[in-house]
Amino acid sequence: MPDPCNMNIVVATDSFKECLTAKEVAANIALGIRMVMPNAEIQEIPISDGGEGVLEAILNGTGGKRLSVLVMDPLMRQIKAEYGILNDNTTAVIEMAQASGIELLTEHEKNPLITTTFGTGQLIREALDQGCEKIIIGIGGSATNDGGAGMVRALGAKFLNEAGDEINDGGGNLNELFTIDLSDFDKRIEKCEVIVACDVSSPLTGINGASFVYGYQKGGNQQDLKILDSNLAHYARIIKSTLDLDVSDMPGAGAAGGTGAGLMAFLKGRPVNGIELILKTLRVEERLKEANLLFTGEGKIDGQTLQGKTISGIALMAKKHQVPVIVITGKIGEDIEDIYDMGVNAVYSIVNRPMKLDQAIEEAPKLIQDTARNIMATIKCFNNS
Amino acid sequence: MPDPCNMNIVVATDSFKECLTAKEVAANIALGIRMVMPNAEIQEIPISDGGEGVLEAILNGTGGKRLSVLVMDPLMRQIKAEYGILNDNTTAVIEMAQASGIELLTEHEKNPLITTTFGTGQLIREALDQGCEKIIIGIGGSATNDGGAGMVRALGAKFLNEAGDEINDGGGNLNELFTIDLSDFDKRIEKCEVIVACDVSSPLTGINGASFVYGYQKGGNQQDLKILDSNLAHYARIIKSTLDLDVSDMPGAGAAGGTGAGLMAFLKGRPVNGIELILKTLRVEERLKEANLLFTGEGKIDGQTLQGKTISGIALMAKKHQVPVIVITGKIGEDIEDIYDMGVNAVYSIVNRPMKLDQAIEEAPKLIQDTARNIMATIKCFNNS
Repeated sequence: MPDPCNMNIVVATDSFKECLTAKEVAANIALGIRMVMPNAEIQEIPISDGGEGVLEAILNGTGGKRLSVLVMDPLMRQIKAEYGILNDNTTAVIEMAQASGIELLTEHEKNPLITTTFGTGQLIREALDQGCEKIIIGIGGSATNDGGAGMVRALGAKFLNEAGDEINDGGGNLNELFTIDLSDFDKRIEKCEVIVACDVSSPLTGINGASFVYGYQKGGNQQDLKILDSNLAHYARIIKSTLDLDVSDMPGAGAAGGTGAGLMAFLKGRPVNGIELILKTLRVEERLKEANLLFTGEGKIDGQTLQGKTISGIALMAKKHQVPVIVITGKIGEDIEDIYDMGVNAVYSIVNRPMKLDQAIEEAPKLIQDTARNIMATIKCFNNS
Repeated sequence: MPDPCNMNIVVATDSFKECLTAKEVAANIALGIRMVMPNAEIQEIPISDGGEGVLEAILNGTGGKRLSVLVMDPLMRQIKAEYGILNDNTTAVIEMAQASGIELLTEHEKNPLITTTFGTGQLIREALDQGCEKIIIGIGGSATNDGGAGMVRALGAKFLNEAGDEINDGGGNLNELFTIDLSDFDKRIEKCEVIVACDVSSPLTGINGASFVYGYQKGGNQQDLKILDSNLAHYARIIKSTLDLDVSDMPGAGAAGGTGAGLMAFLKGRPVNGIELILKTLRVEERLKEANLLFTGEGKIDGQTLQGKTISGIALMAKKHQVPVIVITGKIGEDIEDIYDMGVNAVYSIVNRPMKLDQAIEEAPKLIQDTARNIMATIKCFNNS
């Protein structure tokens, strides 16, 4: 049994959305642990499921530099976005949400008919300009439903209508697409390995496809979703006639409003499960093998959490190595019982009294510390005995 | 180290006020424990600090019968109240709040100038009628500030004004008191041992006395409190001239709006710390010696909790026997850090997400179960290693 004052604890948490970054969550858990075990060995590993936070997670975990560039946001307004280049100087880390994320828009601005992935394409071009030969791109949290067409256009492709004119950006215009002219498409892509961190289970179209599952939260109404779904199907047919490649039944093609399809078709992107990629990149399994305890967490835990997201990924890995898993969260939702089968031993909310969401967010750092403190104080009683 | 599936756990909780009784809280914690340790040996001990719940706690702990009688409430309306007789058939357990409790009145009815302890005196008379020779009386949660005068009147005393007429009940009329006629006072009291479970630190009058500390929550305004305090001082002088006994500086005399003074003066009541009495009566220390873990709890924990209340009493006892102490509560308030010095290892709120008080109360049974489940699942990981 480990010396109670010398436990090796991995703190691998996602962000608490709209509250604290993954790094901040981990740091506060570590503070709480040290209140009762000042000598504990704590490995703080901010993680991400491949969407928002992927850049922070990988750069924190492996080192590298963070670059800031001007790109177009989902409504083609210039914004500053960040991407990373790892210490090998050849691997870029791109987080799609930085350029084309839903968080960049106000509620009123959300509109999946017109939002574009153009800025994400600009980030890719930037990475190529810097000489990168490998791109890891996390495509969660997008505001778009354009099948990645805007992104591909930013790399030199021309999306033409029957008259030979370029169509407008946005998933709502893809029905006009007649041919794709790739004569000016960036040639450097051919020599670049593209890894796509995404929800690999997402198909392009249909009832479980990009439009119907995520189009609503991107601002579409029921009629919009039908148009978007139909347009993505049309887009897949044009891709097939252009590249002789059928993205319509590729798993992951529907990720990020079809950006998965664009990446797979035009950039030969290889879809990988986001959380698995992160865990591998950050060598989480090796670090877990040595650990006595894993703290993980995200802003809320519910039935959805159990479907391929951060916590289930890391919990299964910890279970494999018989490391106890404790989840710290802001909100425990319904139907979480299955989480216990995935290796999670216990789930604690940081909320310490009846309170409003605003209060919980405001007090989150201290609430997280207190929760971790109490859990460690409980463990210490028994680890010590 | 104990077999993880065979832990001996004491669950000794107070009630969650306006939510669950102490017995219900304990039962739900036990359910949660059994979700992960079905074979744990669990001792459910509902406790109380001597006020509300003292009857339930003692009867649950030692066995005995519960009797229902008609008495007068604080506003002299007939109500049904319960008291208990232990299996020795000579010891009665009386909970003052049953007859004279603040919970019996609506907000609008609260008025410490006129509320009376008469009903409590009736309960005592009932116990004497049943042949009891020992009375344990818990005097928390009263609606009254009459120095126990109503109670003493119910036992035959006459409180007379200068004209020789009986004064009206209620602390607001004690200024008229001139003499106390004990010629018809119940003689059986002389042979009865009276144990008063109360906050033994409460003086009768002054800034820390009954009126100023509790009068406000009993419905008094600042002017009322001054009158009540002055009247209790006058009452003490009349007691001194009648019995040659000075209650004015007796610790505990101020408990329950001066009922402590009435019991000590006229019934030779012996004040004892409520929680200590309960712990002793329920043999909690003996049971803790054998235990690996104590769960305790009350509805909310704050700086006040640390001043001689339930949790601090039992936690100190557990600390003495090196039994880990976990507190489960609805609301963790401010300034609780000192609780860790009193033997409490960790404090958990049952609230599992931002929510309103109403929701927490409604869902309390499941929330308590889940909390206990998670704590035990955490402990099991380390108890097992």
